[in-house]
Amino acid sequence: MKLATLKDGSRDGRLLLVNRDLTRMIEADAARTMQQLIECWDDLAPELERQNVEMNESGWVQAEAFDPVRLMAPLPRAYQFVDASSFLNHGKIMEQAYKLSVKKTPGIPILVQRQSDDFTNAVDDYAFPSEDDQCDFEGEIAVILDDVSAGVALENAESHIKLFTLINDVSMRGHLFRELQMGFGLINAKPATTFAPVACTVDELGSSFANGRVNLDMCVHRNNQWFGNPNGREMDFSFAELIRHWAYNRNLRAGTVLGTGTFSNANCREVGSACLAEQRAVEVIDKGESSTDFIKYGESLQFEMFAIDGSSLFGKIDQTFVQGNGTGAVSTPVAVSDQENSYEEISHKENHA
Amino acid sequence: MKLATLKDGSRDGRLLLVNRDLTRMIEADAARTMQQLIECWDDLAPELERQNVEMNESGWVQAEAFDPVRLMAPLPRAYQFVDASSFLNHGKIMEQAYKLSVKKTPGIPILVQRQSDDFTNAVDDYAFPSEDDQCDFEGEIAVILDDVSAGVALENAESHIKLFTLINDVSMRGHLFRELQMGFGLINAKPATTFAPVACTVDELGSSFANGRVNLDMCVHRNNQWFGNPNGREMDFSFAELIRHWAYNRNLRAGTVLGTGTFSNANCREVGSACLAEQRAVEVIDKGESSTDFIKYGESLQFEMFAIDGSSLFGKIDQTFVQGNGTGAVSTPVAVSDQENSYEEISHKENHA
Repeated sequence: MKLATLKDGSRDGRLLLVNRDLTRMIEADAARTMQQLIECWDDLAPELERQNVEMNESGWVQAEAFDPVRLMAPLPRAYQFVDASSFLNHGKIMEQAYKLSVKKTPGIPILVQRQSDDFTNAVDDYAFPSEDDQCDFEGEIAVILDDVSAGVALENAESHIKLFTLINDVSMRGHLFRELQMGFGLINAKPATTFAPVACTVDELGSSFANGRVNLDMCVHRNNQWFGNPNGREMDFSFAELIRHWAYNRNLRAGTVLGTGTFSNANCREVGSACLAEQRAVEVIDKGESSTDFIKYGESLQFEMFAIDGSSLFGKIDQTFVQGNGTGAVSTPVAVSDQENSYEEISHKENHA
Repeated sequence: MKLATLKDGSRDGRLLLVNRDLTRMIEADAARTMQQLIECWDDLAPELERQNVEMNESGWVQAEAFDPVRLMAPLPRAYQFVDASSFLNHGKIMEQAYKLSVKKTPGIPILVQRQSDDFTNAVDDYAFPSEDDQCDFEGEIAVILDDVSAGVALENAESHIKLFTLINDVSMRGHLFRELQMGFGLINAKPATTFAPVACTVDELGSSFANGRVNLDMCVHRNNQWFGNPNGREMDFSFAELIRHWAYNRNLRAGTVLGTGTFSNANCREVGSACLAEQRAVEVIDKGESSTDFIKYGESLQFEMFAIDGSSLFGKIDQTFVQGNGTGAVSTPVAVSDQENSYEEISHKENHA
């Protein structure tokens, strides 16, 4: 199944079912929102699967055209988001280039607690206040979990992954080293994270999900020019290993999001990188200085991942960076008590459009 | 107004209005959950205020007895939680005792992104897997914000604080230095945070909220023995300053929680501390070694804060630490679609109890 969330004026949007080709979308019957679905996955997913089968049989004729502009992040906000740094090659290159020494403990993954209240969609402009902040991108896979109890066993951890998606975990490198050196994690260095239009269940990945890793290329373009296509198979920790360490002494509640960290391969000089910082670091190592610039206003970025059959798994992140405060002023969404009406009105308008 | 959240079998519970004396509680008319209230504060708070006035006039006769055992955290889960370390005296003592050097930038507060999916209530047992993890407490004030737009001006920041409460930001010191040295923030060092039974609006604080700080003592008892009563007036950053730095390039969405960091005073040798680590550090500085132990299974902790008139502002955190995995196995709450019924049933039972 492929799922998305419609902008409907509410904070959580309206859950949609999307066809495999990413050409049609329709409201999900089983749940109103992605969060509701994840909270009651075992009850609701079979119902959604039935709708998906019916839609496939009927050719999605009553569905609308798939339109990323009308979508939010698949899960527009979450109760917890942790980003791993599970491709150790990335850290190794950064440490080598900048003579850093991150005090890692062998066998213990780096996990970064992150904010999850304001995820951005795949195609809206992305605003940040100053080019001096050194805007960078990071191409990652994120998974969405159902309830995980503290102390979960390694062999049970992977079963809690309900959905996969693609993210651009935007960084502001101008703040990163200062915040890393302080030791307490990332604040100004990590503004809102951008999500691909669609999240999908594991069956959509087929044999490319193996060994607890997504063994596919992260296709990165900057201003529609090839930048890199590192593969997910070189993750140094599986999702299960990340989850086990993280849940050592705390529950992870339904809707928790886990990112892999930026994709990075040992042969990054051939396959490129999924972030500017790594390419800049390679330039420093190889040539003594970096020639690749951070993102300037007006530049655009494209991330996409293709299944073995060549189809786009999650749709494309295609965003333009602009000047402004974060993701723009917070607008007041409709009141919760008005959501049902508001949604009905929108739905009504769409049906008559 | 004083507010709490009833355990009703759902993940977000049922919003309650509580009287000033913390003896009576009743379901809020204006909103079903705390999150709903915060999202639509300007619309719903006046309605809640009217109910509060009516209840005060009628003497709360139709309300139930206030019972912290039946309560969740006032906001049981949130979309974002940042904990500050805004009492610099605490860091100074820790650095002096253990010869550390935290690379702070003058004028920039330490903010730690934290998980917010699984807050625990004030009186349930608190489980952690091993005494070797070095369990410690931290007494803090937390505020709950409505929507803050990225780039908020200093002079507008404080107006976004809608509620105040008291938290025990539990630490596992056995993981803390390792995670701090790595630089990416805290994971195993920071399991679930415990909340006082009640959150209150700023008017309940009266003149004790001044200069952007809560100028009251954090009354800390360990096993019902006095441990410390540091005052909030020595925060080195006001709430507004913390919010401004944090929201530099990101929105903070409604329901965001901000903690002050553990209360700490320059005269901690007289007034004591709000965490064990600080007392241990003072012992190291003064006597060469620490004699205070971390929390053992079976020990209890009490946090409370009193208004100028002597009344308990938020009720008491009174928890016993036990062996176990985090906050216990995640139980599957009732399905979202069943919540209304489930709540009605509970409410029905209560009315007839």
